[in-house]
Amino acid sequence: MRLSRLALATTKETPADAEIVSHQLMLRAGMIRRLGAGLYTWSPLGMRVLRKVEAIIRAEMAAIDALEILMPAVQPAELWQESGRWQAMGPLMLRMTDRAEREYCFGPTHEEVVTDYIKRDVRSYKQLPLTVYQIQTKFRDEIRPRFGLMRAREFIMKDAYSFHMDDAGLDHEYQAMRGAYAKILDRMGLDYRVVAADSGAIGGAKSEEFHVLAHSGEDELAVASEGGYAANIEAAVTRAGDGPRGAPGAALKKIDTPGVTTIAGLAEHLKVPESATAKAIVVMGESGDPVLLMLRGDHMLNAIKAEQLPGIATPLTMADEATIREHFGAGPGSLGPVNATVEVIADHALANVADMVVGANYDGAHFTGFNWGRDHPEPRFADLRNIVAGDTSPDGQGTIDILRGIEVGHVFQLGDKYSRALNLTVLNESGAEVVPQMGCYGFGVSRVVAAAIEQCHDDAGIVWPAAIAPFELVIVPIKADKSQAVRDACETLYSELKAAGVDVAYDDRGLRPGPMFADAELIGIPHRIVVSDRGLEAGRLEYKGRADTENSDVAHDIDAIRDKIGHR
Amino acid sequence: MRLSRLALATTKETPADAEIVSHQLMLRAGMIRRLGAGLYTWSPLGMRVLRKVEAIIRAEMAAIDALEILMPAVQPAELWQESGRWQAMGPLMLRMTDRAEREYCFGPTHEEVVTDYIKRDVRSYKQLPLTVYQIQTKFRDEIRPRFGLMRAREFIMKDAYSFHMDDAGLDHEYQAMRGAYAKILDRMGLDYRVVAADSGAIGGAKSEEFHVLAHSGEDELAVASEGGYAANIEAAVTRAGDGPRGAPGAALKKIDTPGVTTIAGLAEHLKVPESATAKAIVVMGESGDPVLLMLRGDHMLNAIKAEQLPGIATPLTMADEATIREHFGAGPGSLGPVNATVEVIADHALANVADMVVGANYDGAHFTGFNWGRDHPEPRFADLRNIVAGDTSPDGQGTIDILRGIEVGHVFQLGDKYSRALNLTVLNESGAEVVPQMGCYGFGVSRVVAAAIEQCHDDAGIVWPAAIAPFELVIVPIKADKSQAVRDACETLYSELKAAGVDVAYDDRGLRPGPMFADAELIGIPHRIVVSDRGLEAGRLEYKGRADTENSDVAHDIDAIRDKIGHR
Repeated sequence: MRLSRLALATTKETPADAEIVSHQLMLRAGMIRRLGAGLYTWSPLGMRVLRKVEAIIRAEMAAIDALEILMPAVQPAELWQESGRWQAMGPLMLRMTDRAEREYCFGPTHEEVVTDYIKRDVRSYKQLPLTVYQIQTKFRDEIRPRFGLMRAREFIMKDAYSFHMDDAGLDHEYQAMRGAYAKILDRMGLDYRVVAADSGAIGGAKSEEFHVLAHSGEDELAVASEGGYAANIEAAVTRAGDGPRGAPGAALKKIDTPGVTTIAGLAEHLKVPESATAKAIVVMGESGDPVLLMLRGDHMLNAIKAEQLPGIATPLTMADEATIREHFGAGPGSLGPVNATVEVIADHALANVADMVVGANYDGAHFTGFNWGRDHPEPRFADLRNIVAGDTSPDGQGTIDILRGIEVGHVFQLGDKYSRALNLTVLNESGAEVVPQMGCYGFGVSRVVAAAIEQCHDDAGIVWPAAIAPFELVIVPIKADKSQAVRDACETLYSELKAAGVDVAYDDRGLRPGPMFADAELIGIPHRIVVSDRGLEAGRLEYKGRADTENSDVAHDIDAIRDKIGHR
Repeated sequence: MRLSRLALATTKETPADAEIVSHQLMLRAGMIRRLGAGLYTWSPLGMRVLRKVEAIIRAEMAAIDALEILMPAVQPAELWQESGRWQAMGPLMLRMTDRAEREYCFGPTHEEVVTDYIKRDVRSYKQLPLTVYQIQTKFRDEIRPRFGLMRAREFIMKDAYSFHMDDAGLDHEYQAMRGAYAKILDRMGLDYRVVAADSGAIGGAKSEEFHVLAHSGEDELAVASEGGYAANIEAAVTRAGDGPRGAPGAALKKIDTPGVTTIAGLAEHLKVPESATAKAIVVMGESGDPVLLMLRGDHMLNAIKAEQLPGIATPLTMADEATIREHFGAGPGSLGPVNATVEVIADHALANVADMVVGANYDGAHFTGFNWGRDHPEPRFADLRNIVAGDTSPDGQGTIDILRGIEVGHVFQLGDKYSRALNLTVLNESGAEVVPQMGCYGFGVSRVVAAAIEQCHDDAGIVWPAAIAPFELVIVPIKADKSQAVRDACETLYSELKAAGVDVAYDDRGLRPGPMFADAELIGIPHRIVVSDRGLEAGRLEYKGRADTENSDVAHDIDAIRDKIGHR
């Protein structure tokens, strides 16, 4: 394409309201423009990337026989009431009322609608398994839309749904979709990890997330150095303390710790490592009484794990100070199990620790030499904490590293949650009615564009992987206004590269070299060919790969260029 | 594609709630499924058609350098308030309020949003002209959604917008877009007409509509037998009566017409043609007084023309009986100009008519021998009526025929209505601020699919034009379960046709021939090849074009088949 016809709108200034680099660069490159909070228009330049991403997704969906459909964005409330999510979705769901006073939402996801759709035509086991998908616009009314497309309210998603006669069928398709997602990200040239995930509000049994690795990623991923274990830190399982507990080596001793209310302060005060202390967190139990959670001083509570324990209130609720004082006789910062009158649950990393430092349930005092069994009955032990770097992997193979990622895909085994709620049944081979098993599989189409930029950029701009770049190559003429030879060479090169199937841009805007180079780097075109009189005289063109630090030469020859850019 | 993998869901029964043939056939073929009032899901089969339509549109937009963008569906109220349409759109616009209590609509169109988008980056005449388009989901909360995709609430539209420094630039792009729309419909193989249109509520000067011809079309089109005049009947201009008015030949005579209140009844009573009578219609004027409109008895009032006359209230409002009796002393059915105390506007077809029959403003009485000038002052003459078949074309060339059409495209010269309302200005060559001229161009993507079916069907189902058929050709095996030769021949044929670039379906569902033939006809595949043992033994395959009445033979040879179906 001739860049003069693309309505490029690049800027040098970093927009003040853009916090992360993908948002900044998409605005600076003119890929998107803001319409309102969490609402963006894709420009012609942005669309070139979006369409390439969509094409890769469609090809990989077709490769696993997933069928494309298109469901409405506007969804009747009735279906959501049947599944119980009309209330559960809360203000995240944008609701509306039509002229006949019927309620609808702008679909944040399509489990209900797709189940209703399948129900209309699928009656027999012979029609299953069946996987459908769509690439469609969704809306989630985020409390704080930000980061551009990363957390936009209106966004584009590829959502797929599969229906099966049994768990084995579901698992088979789940693996196929998992493979397709991996291929999609491979083809896009992105570095990613597949991690075990918490199934969260959507329900269901097994689920995994696909994360594009980036320093700015909102999610922390626990990845083992060996054996392949990988999980979102929300879901990463920790191991119980290794080996048997040592015998108590010290007496329980109350010490004054005036003004010490943090673990860091306590460790400092006692000159012990934080790991020798234990922290106390008081949450509300289902019964209405508080529950004391104990963790090693250097560990962090994992709220999702705590919430899933029997007896703990959902959603996880911290006890307020009045409740704590009523039950413990002391405030937060001095709490512990000694003489506690509430249930105690301890993280299993504390199971084999002797001689701990714990709060004394007395403001400004702690105990040293605390031992389970002797100073408090053995508590319930459970996995309560976030995994940390250096932990042994849950499967015992290698150690854990913590990476940061941006979630771009999520595959779920839903089971029969929605098929049962919406009364989807099919007849099996014996003529009996069976509730199908369902899988659902989301892929963030607009988000993966932003994630790719988070992973692939430098100070000059975006460094697109070739498969999703707006153009593969840009031809930049030097002093075209003064040289017929340069203009002719560019035109010929442009035609020949197009004919060879290269997605080529020709910068015919008549700018000086500096701005042309800057734009090519900002919008991230992988390959640049500079055409100048001096080069032409020598039969050479100047080449620079977007990630290269130096220019190099290439013969003024279409085949030489194709070799150089690996386009064959 | 193997049809066993397409999740086809055809039915023989015509759905009771589907009134028109495209709705019936899309449901029977399983192209769409209803989610709610005016809300439809596109099935895998339907998507194949939709994607082909979209691809043709994208190619023709690219050919005129229109740039694809994608704007949000959810639009802030503020922009619509700026243009004045937040109120004007009324209940047709689906509105919603987000968690921060801000108002939005689900965009029924995008003039405001695109003008805001252009405003952000376009500053100089050097950046114009510029044409952008999107293929996007829109919502219009129709009072009575019906006819399936023909009048759905949620639908897919291609909407384009162009921006220009002056009228000449706008007109140039308007013609280019008009040409592109014609090419799109030509490529789709549809019979259509381009007609002059009323610009309606969207505003602006010039506009034309693209109509796919179909007996079921909701619009009437006036098309001249010569000279190319064509207009929507809403906008078709009529000629004044030819030649000078004859001298009065009869005296004004009051006659009793008891119980006669219709033109048909009057003509019958007097044994004269309806065209010798004049009908009276009383509408409200801007001043609040009624206005008497007179038309030839056989002519119909064109409400859009009447509404656009100076002095007439907008929207056009019929006077109620009380108002009529107060001003005329008689009721509807006996009204006329004689002694009328209100303004009289007569259709210009009455300008040269002498000796008319008119109401006497006296219940149960009419006048014969009414003449303008003698029996009532010369009225204001205007074009007030619908054009009718047999009328001379407004340009005097040929006569008018009335066709029925389905509007699938509309091109508008908007002028500066939106650019001015939203304060879009650019600097011209002299550095002065200029308000750009705008064009807008809509094409109904989902609607054209339904329109194609209205035009192209028979008793057995859809008869797709090849360019938008879900498949070009279907291979139907006979007794495949009993013949390895048939199975092998089908597989080979399937592979070879795919390799040759034919969009081929292979009916591998293991059904009997009858149901396979019926499905192929219902879903409208243009070409059918039947593979049987008997044919294979003779080296022949059986061919039938979808519109053919008889089968024919084709050699068992890939090139022979490609010749037969015109695929080269």
